[in-house]
Amino acid sequence: MARNFADRLCAAVKLRRSHAVVGLDPVLPRLPEFIKREAAAQYGKTARGAAAAILAFNRLVIDAVADQVALVKPQSAFYELYGEHGVAAFWETVRYARSKGLLTIADAKRGDIGSTAEGYASAFFGHPSPLETWEEPDQWADSLTVNPYLGSDGLVPFVRRAEARGTGLFILVKTSNPSSGELQDQPLLSGETVAQQVAKLVDSLGSRLVGQAGYSAVGAVVGATYPEDLKRYRAEMPRAILLVPGYGAQGGTADDVVGAFNLDGLGAVINASRSIIYAYPGTDPSPQEAAAAIAGAVAAMNRDINGALQAAGKLAW
Amino acid sequence: MARNFADRLCAAVKLRRSHAVVGLDPVLPRLPEFIKREAAAQYGKTARGAAAAILAFNRLVIDAVADQVALVKPQSAFYELYGEHGVAAFWETVRYARSKGLLTIADAKRGDIGSTAEGYASAFFGHPSPLETWEEPDQWADSLTVNPYLGSDGLVPFVRRAEARGTGLFILVKTSNPSSGELQDQPLLSGETVAQQVAKLVDSLGSRLVGQAGYSAVGAVVGATYPEDLKRYRAEMPRAILLVPGYGAQGGTADDVVGAFNLDGLGAVINASRSIIYAYPGTDPSPQEAAAAIAGAVAAMNRDINGALQAAGKLAW
Repeated sequence: MARNFADRLCAAVKLRRSHAVVGLDPVLPRLPEFIKREAAAQYGKTARGAAAAILAFNRLVIDAVADQVALVKPQSAFYELYGEHGVAAFWETVRYARSKGLLTIADAKRGDIGSTAEGYASAFFGHPSPLETWEEPDQWADSLTVNPYLGSDGLVPFVRRAEARGTGLFILVKTSNPSSGELQDQPLLSGETVAQQVAKLVDSLGSRLVGQAGYSAVGAVVGATYPEDLKRYRAEMPRAILLVPGYGAQGGTADDVVGAFNLDGLGAVINASRSIIYAYPGTDPSPQEAAAAIAGAVAAMNRDINGALQAAGKLAW
Repeated sequence: MARNFADRLCAAVKLRRSHAVVGLDPVLPRLPEFIKREAAAQYGKTARGAAAAILAFNRLVIDAVADQVALVKPQSAFYELYGEHGVAAFWETVRYARSKGLLTIADAKRGDIGSTAEGYASAFFGHPSPLETWEEPDQWADSLTVNPYLGSDGLVPFVRRAEARGTGLFILVKTSNPSSGELQDQPLLSGETVAQQVAKLVDSLGSRLVGQAGYSAVGAVVGATYPEDLKRYRAEMPRAILLVPGYGAQGGTADDVVGAFNLDGLGAVINASRSIIYAYPGTDPSPQEAAAAIAGAVAAMNRDINGALQAAGKLAW
């Protein structure tokens, strides 16, 4: 069996002294002009050109942050937008990040019934047998976000594949958006909320995949925009690594996310996308200005979170 | 504004006298040998070759069913498996189906927070402005399945785009898999279940998109494997078109699905995948044998469902 994802994540976080995840959500209007000019010159103002621009931008971001963070998270929607060209850019981004020593979270929020979930598990974690593809393509991420609405038989195929491949999952529990509570915070007759029910499922599905560091390869998504929830779900899923979106542009602060961490200073990774990748002023920076601004923003994020953890007595190093 | 999706669907269903949706879920081990031989000869046993095989197979299926059904539903997982090549085959399949007069349901079960949901809406319904892609690619389906776990602000971007584009949605309410009830059937303090709460959301989101036939472009997924649920959700979302999976290989019968229809004989479309597309015996049929078996299976499905509707006094023609 491959090495447990949670162990790989904890080791990488300690090595970089960073709990940050850089979200790779490239949108064309906000990319540096020099990148768009080059892509348009080579491929025209086409979907292929747009995909070339976002790949070039991702490489710039990855180069600027690779020695400061442990994880990057490309969000699939921004690539699917460009069809086959965008999907090629998505996987090339994942491969490039891996080549720079980063762990990758494919943020695709997939979820479906059994046999289809198997298909998605193959699409994101690699193929289990040559029957499916003849040759296995180099197409796999270290982890994947998944949606729990279909219940455990939509999740188990992902868990099994994660176990076999040493990859990880982040199951949506409580999302960061304003209307997340409409369904997720509904109180059940049992006294729990819908999201608490999902948290129990995360804890039980993850029990077989706990690594040497004490964390499971089955993690959970809990938004930074609901700090009280973060503390509650931290307690309810003690072995889950929480992927926490909502820091930065969505309004979550370092103090808000401290509750996501256990006393060992581990157990959470904090995502920021727009506040990092568009840290340069305007849309016409030089390559050096763009890289420096991005590197500076991620350094500030690391200081911010590590400072809040230190103040709370939760620094892991 | 483009023509309402529900109106287009009702007209197409009446024209073909068919409530069937043919699910295009191609898996390599079950494709006819002649198709795999040709694809492998041209592209090798690679992901590209596999994608070429599933596209050739889909064309065969579409040609065999196009004069008998109104809709086809490619399931995204089986294409994403082959990365960029698979996604190219997905969109080529959608374009080919449209060129044959079929309506398309992109079964991708997407769902995310606001700005990302916008991205998915663009990916599946076309781009709203040249800012996003420079040129707009020919990449859109007539409708899309979406997941409601994130609440209304994860759904509204899809609804708005559906309104602008004349496309449709099928929001997951009660899925066909064995563990669908774990979350969806949980009773809330309000006395409703989680899925009933989602059904209310479907009904209210769809109220602005009701067409001349009396149905909304915002539909719902309710599985055939829970016939009692079908009747209940039919009543709770009177204007929603129900997309009903689970007929055929998953065990649902024509009698099970009758409850999904309104008294006007409309309001539901019934999906079958494996029982139709793999209707030929063995894996080495001739092209003619494969086409005849598939056409025969879909004709039998139409007779089966129309017969049950007639017996129930619900035939629309």
